[in-house]
Amino acid sequence: MKKLAVLFCLAALPLLADEGMWLPQQIPQIAGDLRKSGIKIDPNRLADLTGDPMGAVIALGGCTASFVSPDGLAVTNHHCAYNSIRVNSTPQRDLLKNGFLAKSFDEELPAAPGSRISVTTKIEDVTDKVIGNLSPKLDDRGRDIEIGRREKELTAECEKPGGVRCRVASMFEGSQYLRFTSMEIRDVRLAYAPAEGIGNFGGETDNWMWPRHTGDFAFYRAYVGKDGKPAEYSKDNVPFKPAHWLKVSTARLAPGDFVMVAGYPGRTFRFHTEQEVTNSRDVTLPTSIRYATELSRILNEVGKDNRAIQIKNASRLRGLDNSLKNNTGALETLTHGAIVAQRHQREADLAKWISSHPQYAGVMESLRKINEEEVAMQQRDSLLFWIYRSSPMLTQARQVYRNAIERTKKDIDRAGGFQDRDQATLMQAATRAQSEFEPASDRAGLRFFLLESQKLPANQRIAAVDQALAKAGSVDAFLDSLYANTTIADLNQRKAMYGETTKQLDARNDAMLGFAAKLIPLTEANEERSEQIAGALSRVRPQYLAALRDMNGGKLYSDANLTLRITYGHVAGYSPRDAVMYAPQTTVAGVLQKNSGKDEFDSPPALLDAIRAKKFGPYADPRLGEVPVDYLSDVDTTGGNSGSPTLNANGELCGLLFDGTYESLGSDYLFEPITRSIHVDSTYMLWVMDAVDHAQNLLKEMGVTPAF
Amino acid sequence: MKKLAVLFCLAALPLLADEGMWLPQQIPQIAGDLRKSGIKIDPNRLADLTGDPMGAVIALGGCTASFVSPDGLAVTNHHCAYNSIRVNSTPQRDLLKNGFLAKSFDEELPAAPGSRISVTTKIEDVTDKVIGNLSPKLDDRGRDIEIGRREKELTAECEKPGGVRCRVASMFEGSQYLRFTSMEIRDVRLAYAPAEGIGNFGGETDNWMWPRHTGDFAFYRAYVGKDGKPAEYSKDNVPFKPAHWLKVSTARLAPGDFVMVAGYPGRTFRFHTEQEVTNSRDVTLPTSIRYATELSRILNEVGKDNRAIQIKNASRLRGLDNSLKNNTGALETLTHGAIVAQRHQREADLAKWISSHPQYAGVMESLRKINEEEVAMQQRDSLLFWIYRSSPMLTQARQVYRNAIERTKKDIDRAGGFQDRDQATLMQAATRAQSEFEPASDRAGLRFFLLESQKLPANQRIAAVDQALAKAGSVDAFLDSLYANTTIADLNQRKAMYGETTKQLDARNDAMLGFAAKLIPLTEANEERSEQIAGALSRVRPQYLAALRDMNGGKLYSDANLTLRITYGHVAGYSPRDAVMYAPQTTVAGVLQKNSGKDEFDSPPALLDAIRAKKFGPYADPRLGEVPVDYLSDVDTTGGNSGSPTLNANGELCGLLFDGTYESLGSDYLFEPITRSIHVDSTYMLWVMDAVDHAQNLLKEMGVTPAF
Repeated sequence: MKKLAVLFCLAALPLLADEGMWLPQQIPQIAGDLRKSGIKIDPNRLADLTGDPMGAVIALGGCTASFVSPDGLAVTNHHCAYNSIRVNSTPQRDLLKNGFLAKSFDEELPAAPGSRISVTTKIEDVTDKVIGNLSPKLDDRGRDIEIGRREKELTAECEKPGGVRCRVASMFEGSQYLRFTSMEIRDVRLAYAPAEGIGNFGGETDNWMWPRHTGDFAFYRAYVGKDGKPAEYSKDNVPFKPAHWLKVSTARLAPGDFVMVAGYPGRTFRFHTEQEVTNSRDVTLPTSIRYATELSRILNEVGKDNRAIQIKNASRLRGLDNSLKNNTGALETLTHGAIVAQRHQREADLAKWISSHPQYAGVMESLRKINEEEVAMQQRDSLLFWIYRSSPMLTQARQVYRNAIERTKKDIDRAGGFQDRDQATLMQAATRAQSEFEPASDRAGLRFFLLESQKLPANQRIAAVDQALAKAGSVDAFLDSLYANTTIADLNQRKAMYGETTKQLDARNDAMLGFAAKLIPLTEANEERSEQIAGALSRVRPQYLAALRDMNGGKLYSDANLTLRITYGHVAGYSPRDAVMYAPQTTVAGVLQKNSGKDEFDSPPALLDAIRAKKFGPYADPRLGEVPVDYLSDVDTTGGNSGSPTLNANGELCGLLFDGTYESLGSDYLFEPITRSIHVDSTYMLWVMDAVDHAQNLLKEMGVTPAF
Repeated sequence: MKKLAVLFCLAALPLLADEGMWLPQQIPQIAGDLRKSGIKIDPNRLADLTGDPMGAVIALGGCTASFVSPDGLAVTNHHCAYNSIRVNSTPQRDLLKNGFLAKSFDEELPAAPGSRISVTTKIEDVTDKVIGNLSPKLDDRGRDIEIGRREKELTAECEKPGGVRCRVASMFEGSQYLRFTSMEIRDVRLAYAPAEGIGNFGGETDNWMWPRHTGDFAFYRAYVGKDGKPAEYSKDNVPFKPAHWLKVSTARLAPGDFVMVAGYPGRTFRFHTEQEVTNSRDVTLPTSIRYATELSRILNEVGKDNRAIQIKNASRLRGLDNSLKNNTGALETLTHGAIVAQRHQREADLAKWISSHPQYAGVMESLRKINEEEVAMQQRDSLLFWIYRSSPMLTQARQVYRNAIERTKKDIDRAGGFQDRDQATLMQAATRAQSEFEPASDRAGLRFFLLESQKLPANQRIAAVDQALAKAGSVDAFLDSLYANTTIADLNQRKAMYGETTKQLDARNDAMLGFAAKLIPLTEANEERSEQIAGALSRVRPQYLAALRDMNGGKLYSDANLTLRITYGHVAGYSPRDAVMYAPQTTVAGVLQKNSGKDEFDSPPALLDAIRAKKFGPYADPRLGEVPVDYLSDVDTTGGNSGSPTLNANGELCGLLFDGTYESLGSDYLFEPITRSIHVDSTYMLWVMDAVDHAQNLLKEMGVTPAF
């Protein structure tokens, strides 16, 4: 009985990829690197926001997508469309479980309330207008308020002609301010999502893990008014005609192939100091992990044996579990990995360098002092955050009451999120929240955090909570009254509340509104403190960055902040630990291996049948002998990049970014040689659509000839 | 920031290894294959039991070892010496935790009572003497009794000259009988064991797992009387001078290198039928898993917070947890793997083949009928087995009482294990059991299985248990009386009991003896049933094997049965699942990665220091850049092979076999292309001895020049 043995060889091959999340206007700086790395299209095309391919890259709230047809069909991750699938699901018509395909435009379903598709159309440098000629007499808080006022003015000026949304974003630690103009499409509909057993195959178990076998893709369609302009949902709206859409690749990827990703990464901390990352390691992450663990446990407990409650809580739980695993992994890398040592070294180098560059003297000391101030009340601030996170109802009450307060002010003086331009968004959020209201879960979560508040140290107590509990006699008595005497969960009542004054709201004698009102002064006081700290930082952090740049010379990219970025790299596996090697591509053979027919590994029968029958047609990869599923690359991404189109050297869509590996969970702090992103292969997407879900209508729309 | 990416390539290389556990006398048959596979010494040397290297290979009870010095130094696995380390440990002098090194002969410690080293000195074919001229008039049971009687006679005849132990073993499903003669050394001492944080690094978590970083080695020394003959322990004994001992390799291994293993594999089921493996999958393994899980839980519970109880139960728990993981993995492969399908195919092929070979007609039907009979009472039989396993005290009571019954018979008519030749072993077992007596654990375990016995189906009840419980009124009342009224746990009392008649024992009015006595009739009845079934099988299974051999032609090896075997293969990694590849070697870098400083991953500081300081000297592998730790090969092994010397192409000791991979846990039923064994690299052993534990005395004794 002869047998085959699989032998491995490891080749250490220097790749030309750089870490970095580059702004489109930085492309000329890195064009040479892109060429050396293997890009075949002219890299400078990437600097043109309104051209091909960047004109096809779009933002969802917190995710990225891209147009893939002239009729506004947009592809993103299943997990980015998850809430839209959820709100259209009931235990009787469970689209999460079974998937959804509109066979024609009129079968498409409205996405979750508030869903938007944004197309960045212009980026302008407004640095001078934001921080030029700031009066030296301004104290720290005054300085931040003035910067904020100027940002709001620049936003208002930009949005005045109508039809666009604008945002001024601080780049390079406040050294530069850019104004982003976007067209915002407000009628978004769900066109297709595979069954959860494909789109979320592996669930939380496989989340952040490699090898992965998730078909994390779903399709939206953008609709506009008959005049071609963005409009609220109406059945008379028509599909949006984008100027550019991506061509879906029909080639196969191989290890070492060039790939790039365009998208909207959310937040990184690459310029955080040793003090800041140490505080993340010792306080912020452990606290967040503990609170998320408890809230997840509570929501699961309440929903046990009740599918209706499970669907209500599904998105919340998924968010909790996702950030829990993310934070746990990040804490692990912060504890055991190279991050803190790298910061320590960087700052030691910087201190040495500054000693011969006196113009930067004192920068690190100033930063240190401000940071100390910033964390002084962090236990209380964190708990306050989680009190709201635990209770969507209390969060709505706060929004209602805060809005009433802010609306008494001039528009320009209002807190962010409460200006006139935000009112529609507020109302959409109010509607969306409705689908998540689940009073038993709300109360159980809030109860835990109120009890936690009683353990806060004396100097960090939340007076409003202490008083409310003292008055009621006990947490349970307080909660009895809170939930018995509120109409906040009534959508019509709540919509009415958004139009009322504080006096009208007070007259309602609504317990939830009353509790929210008592908490608002602390929120406002915190914002004042934040403004003061932000003002101080706005003087120091640009200096810190300038010192780092001067010391190292050359290129720098700005930390992620939900603005459009480009990153590039190659398809590449890695070794997560001694004697284990991960190949960079998975195949449908692995789906069969993982499928258990239950829980998170429950593939739809049609998928299993197609794999077993090797119904692969032109989608098989001859090298792998199977249909590829997911792949790894060493591009530089983070949350917010989810759904980002992955483009091959020819600028064609060859996949969607949807995750990072567990070993990469510290990459928000430090990009390391083993940092990897996970993409779903466009080949798998096309094959599932063709062989499993019979979405031939969409394939044809994308210019792909169905094989089955 | 340029980075290195690790690329992988897979080469499917046909190796010349065969599955198979070959008897030394089969070597001429496979000498050609061994040469093609890369052996450099003359393969026929392996057929000479008294030559080099086979003369150095020795059996421990259930493990294998080998001589490595002219002074009787023998190396085996840490887990094979575990019980000897444990019995010498106390909470105050915790050799398990801290390791042990005798700096001179007189510091060596007696191994666990009953420890023996056996050297196979002769193998004779006695087939004719066992099954020749069996009267055709014998019924099935009579046939088995007659075979057993002949085996006992052949054993007695062989042992008559004294100084040796003999055993007649059935090979090839009863087609052949071989008589093995061994010299048995009874004074065995512990010379060296690394700390548990090396020898059992990874503990149960890593058990059966790859990648592995366990230094699973320990050293015994064999002692004999001044006359050079085996003797009981005496401080006047002298180190045994073996005729042959293995040279420890100082070369480094690489993937693809030839390796072979000589040892005493315990039990395989490669010739079990589909009916038998299906019963393993559906009944035997699930039951065993459930019972082991419960008993493990109970023992852990009792020992919680009490290190003395933990040490008492350590070996029992380790055995339970090991077989639990083994059985769980085996059940997984039986459920999801190729085993049942392979049997189904083999038997379908055989049925087809037999249809044109009428001399074998009816063989499979006969086997099926006998197997059905065999499993008819398996729930009861399994529970009876676990009742004894849960209670070392009841087991001793049974041995005492059974011995008294058997000793009334002529020696040749006694049940196996109770003949005159077994009396010394019985007494050693009695002494060894003492170190495991822990009445609270004993009672808690027995209680569970007595409660379980009350759930047996009506036709499989254990009458003696039912009556005892009915009489006592409740399980707890029964146990109260059982443990209050026994002196079985008193070593001196128990030794005395072994010399008493049943009448004397009855007169003791010992509750444990009384209960054991009531259970013995069922054991005897079961043995009668077994004899009848074994007799029936002795007619049919040789035919079944002959049919298989005739159908396939060529070589066959016999299932493992604790007799000396040789297997060969190559150092080789494997792919356990889609996109994951395991390299065949681990290094000390992986020890650092796994070390958490607690529980099962608690490396000794001296080891960590040596790794961090890269104090590698000549032990580093230039290719790996580190000291290698463990490696994989595709040799064919099973339990009992633990501690087996692994020899390189030159016949030098290059490691010790100590485990198989999780994906190989079905290999007792079917050897598959991904079946792999795990070995500790002799390089790691030498390095730990030299750089960490300062066992330079032993290194010099083995002819290795210390580097530190």
